[in-house]
Amino acid sequence: MDAPEISVIPKPLLLERGSGEFRFGSHTPVTLRNGLPELGPEGYRLTVDADGVTFEADTPAAVFHAEQTLRQLLPPAALREAGGPDTWPLPHVQIIDAPRFRWRGVLLDVARHFLPKREVLRFLDLMALHKLNVLHWHLTEDQGWRVEIKRYPRLTEVGSWRRETLGDGRPHGGFYTQDDIREIVAYAAERHITVVPEIDVPGHSTAAIAAYPELGNQDVPAAAGPREVWTRFGIATTVLNVEDATVAFYQNVMDEICDLFPGDYICLGGDECPKEEWKASARAQQRKAELGLSTEEDLQAWFLHQISAHVAAKGRKLLGWDEILEGALFPGTVVSSWRGTEGAVEAARRGHDTLTSPCTWVYFDYRQSDAPGEPGAPWAAPTTLERAYAFEPVPEDMPSDLASHVIGSEATLWSEYMPSPRVVDYQAWPRLCAFSETVWSGAERDYDEFRGRLVKHLERLDALGVEYRPLEGPRPWQEQPAARWRAEEAE
Amino acid sequence: MDAPEISVIPKPLLLERGSGEFRFGSHTPVTLRNGLPELGPEGYRLTVDADGVTFEADTPAAVFHAEQTLRQLLPPAALREAGGPDTWPLPHVQIIDAPRFRWRGVLLDVARHFLPKREVLRFLDLMALHKLNVLHWHLTEDQGWRVEIKRYPRLTEVGSWRRETLGDGRPHGGFYTQDDIREIVAYAAERHITVVPEIDVPGHSTAAIAAYPELGNQDVPAAAGPREVWTRFGIATTVLNVEDATVAFYQNVMDEICDLFPGDYICLGGDECPKEEWKASARAQQRKAELGLSTEEDLQAWFLHQISAHVAAKGRKLLGWDEILEGALFPGTVVSSWRGTEGAVEAARRGHDTLTSPCTWVYFDYRQSDAPGEPGAPWAAPTTLERAYAFEPVPEDMPSDLASHVIGSEATLWSEYMPSPRVVDYQAWPRLCAFSETVWSGAERDYDEFRGRLVKHLERLDALGVEYRPLEGPRPWQEQPAARWRAEEAE
Repeated sequence: MDAPEISVIPKPLLLERGSGEFRFGSHTPVTLRNGLPELGPEGYRLTVDADGVTFEADTPAAVFHAEQTLRQLLPPAALREAGGPDTWPLPHVQIIDAPRFRWRGVLLDVARHFLPKREVLRFLDLMALHKLNVLHWHLTEDQGWRVEIKRYPRLTEVGSWRRETLGDGRPHGGFYTQDDIREIVAYAAERHITVVPEIDVPGHSTAAIAAYPELGNQDVPAAAGPREVWTRFGIATTVLNVEDATVAFYQNVMDEICDLFPGDYICLGGDECPKEEWKASARAQQRKAELGLSTEEDLQAWFLHQISAHVAAKGRKLLGWDEILEGALFPGTVVSSWRGTEGAVEAARRGHDTLTSPCTWVYFDYRQSDAPGEPGAPWAAPTTLERAYAFEPVPEDMPSDLASHVIGSEATLWSEYMPSPRVVDYQAWPRLCAFSETVWSGAERDYDEFRGRLVKHLERLDALGVEYRPLEGPRPWQEQPAARWRAEEAE
Repeated sequence: MDAPEISVIPKPLLLERGSGEFRFGSHTPVTLRNGLPELGPEGYRLTVDADGVTFEADTPAAVFHAEQTLRQLLPPAALREAGGPDTWPLPHVQIIDAPRFRWRGVLLDVARHFLPKREVLRFLDLMALHKLNVLHWHLTEDQGWRVEIKRYPRLTEVGSWRRETLGDGRPHGGFYTQDDIREIVAYAAERHITVVPEIDVPGHSTAAIAAYPELGNQDVPAAAGPREVWTRFGIATTVLNVEDATVAFYQNVMDEICDLFPGDYICLGGDECPKEEWKASARAQQRKAELGLSTEEDLQAWFLHQISAHVAAKGRKLLGWDEILEGALFPGTVVSSWRGTEGAVEAARRGHDTLTSPCTWVYFDYRQSDAPGEPGAPWAAPTTLERAYAFEPVPEDMPSDLASHVIGSEATLWSEYMPSPRVVDYQAWPRLCAFSETVWSGAERDYDEFRGRLVKHLERLDALGVEYRPLEGPRPWQEQPAARWRAEEAE
């Protein structure tokens, strides 16, 4: 067997190929040496020569990244679970590598459609292969609550499933026990991935309100919004009320969440919170007056502040969507800018770190082409692979002295249009291959050169059984009759 | 942490618990000694005492079974992928164990609904935990052809997907490349599981005919049966023609199948082949006359003989469903008796080995209760867990001198009513736990005692993320509105 072509994704800083080849087996030892300090905590040098494989790396994360690169130097078949030869050809090479950003995230929405634990673990494996290191885990929604909270069992008993989806007549649901969560967090940690849980408040909370109606604005007629776990998609007008008891409820929830997720960050959402209910609720208006607040936006900021302060008192930092810029920001909160990148600039101006996640560039629930059978959110312009690859994490209009506030980016996999793990595969890959280079590799990018490497890389995804979107378009059974989704949306 | 209760499934021959406990970690060595000859090739003795763990076993399969038992002696959390302590408590115990039958099979139908490779690998893991050792892999059907055949690429290009299912307007499909097949077979072999492929002929072949119309009875009006990959369920009247070219086609297919699957057995199906087309086809009638045959049943036997002889010439043995008893049996063919157990008795009388797989006992696509929301085939009486546990592999009316012809049994997971891996989990577990005892453990069984052990065993399935049917009935999101399936069936 010939030594394989070299096509590492994400692209390393520097790669120099030698002329020889080394035979590598699962028991071949790897020499480990001190790293090069200038490469930072995640950087490494990987050398393959006649003596074998050497990693120069100073941290377990850097060693892990070197291992992931090594896997990509082997033939694709080496990634299969069984059936290979004893040794594989490994080209002589020197690679020097380090990431551009420290936060290389993917949002995984398991609330609109549940993903079984095994699929979350597999997703972590695939993230690791691409050197992505933050799983932003969207766990609660109008359409479902996915994490067991011991103090409030109805959150999962009632909130973890819905009667049907878009009128299909079939129940859908599922949740992770606390043991499942600890397993997933530990599995991620072994892969140097931090899991950032998102408990979205005060909007996107219909499932919680269905479980505990006292969390909702009960003096507003139910007809104003859904009060069962929502069976449709969109922005629900149903939101949490602003009672002290509701604040206390979520503080208690956060106590359990902070115990389960040891990472530095907790996401409180804060996005898409319509103010209709608070405007219509006499009780919410009374609370606004009691608290000395003048607008509903102030009420939202007050609510988020109460939860944020509680979480911050445990030594954690907060993450929220750019809507939280409408009110006072809790100190140290990181802002994820999704409605364009203006929020990132604004956050940086206000002295906050920020993530860029602009929907028209890195929302991978959007379609990958505008062909009729292309799956994905039908109402948005497509995000092609080429466009995903052209994403630049630092906004053009970010003042250069504030650019260091951009600590990274996140691609998102919102799951309204991803009813099964097979569809998640289709939407995530290969767009996340492109995204991984935008956050790991240098700012200089050449799409044609990337595409050449990707063709080889897709053989790896084949070996791993990933049902990605082929470059030429969906396989026949991956097509989604667009008319069907559109009709469902219009219902 | 206390030493765990002992509740091994399938139940070992003999289990004696001691009073102490040993701390076992992932690096703890296990002592391996020669086995006890009277326990046969798969039997083992497993001892845990103050000195640690000892296996007495003579074959890799026996050592593997001992390891699976050991996993069940650990606390359930030890089965999780990550996050446990360094060592676990292991009770002092002596276990002597050996299987009752050598063929402990499960039929997995990936043709009516495709299962991605990862789900097949996971299913093999779960089979191994329950000491099931034959995966009867149903790869071709009216509704889809799932295995790449290099010589006939249209079998997967055309045959691996259908336009829709029961009028749902969504395409469905997928297939395994030959590399995928080799990986799965190797992965199974590492777990001492043999994969027996089924290429079903001459019925259940609409997907192949859609790909290569010349395989069908082209002189019969198309209106007589489906000619595209079938989008409905039931018994299609569309069947293969009886031309020499069709025989040669399938002999060529079998050449590739035999290369991919190194096990002793190949299944040719042979079930549910309606004779309407052959009766209506002038060409089939002409062939019958040419071949000197008098009935359409003879035509079927002739067809199967041609393929069987070709496969047998490669040193393989044949497996077929009990319908093949309607004609002359090819020498050495094993008969799987599914329409009751009469076929098993008949096969044994004719000197053939046989598997029992009676549909009213071990067809796990049937419902697990008759409650309104219970998923599964709505037209069959339920197969409860208790009934599954009461299955006796040797038919009552099998003459005792022929009983040794019963080499084992197979449970089946036909997938018309299993549109996703989550539903496969629900139907398979815990009924396969019960089935595993009927084929591994002794003939004496006490359901209440089993149920007590099962309650503990379900904690293992929880740790493994298996979405089994809870003993008290489906979780809300596992319910299947019966009315919906019935309406679809009636269409």
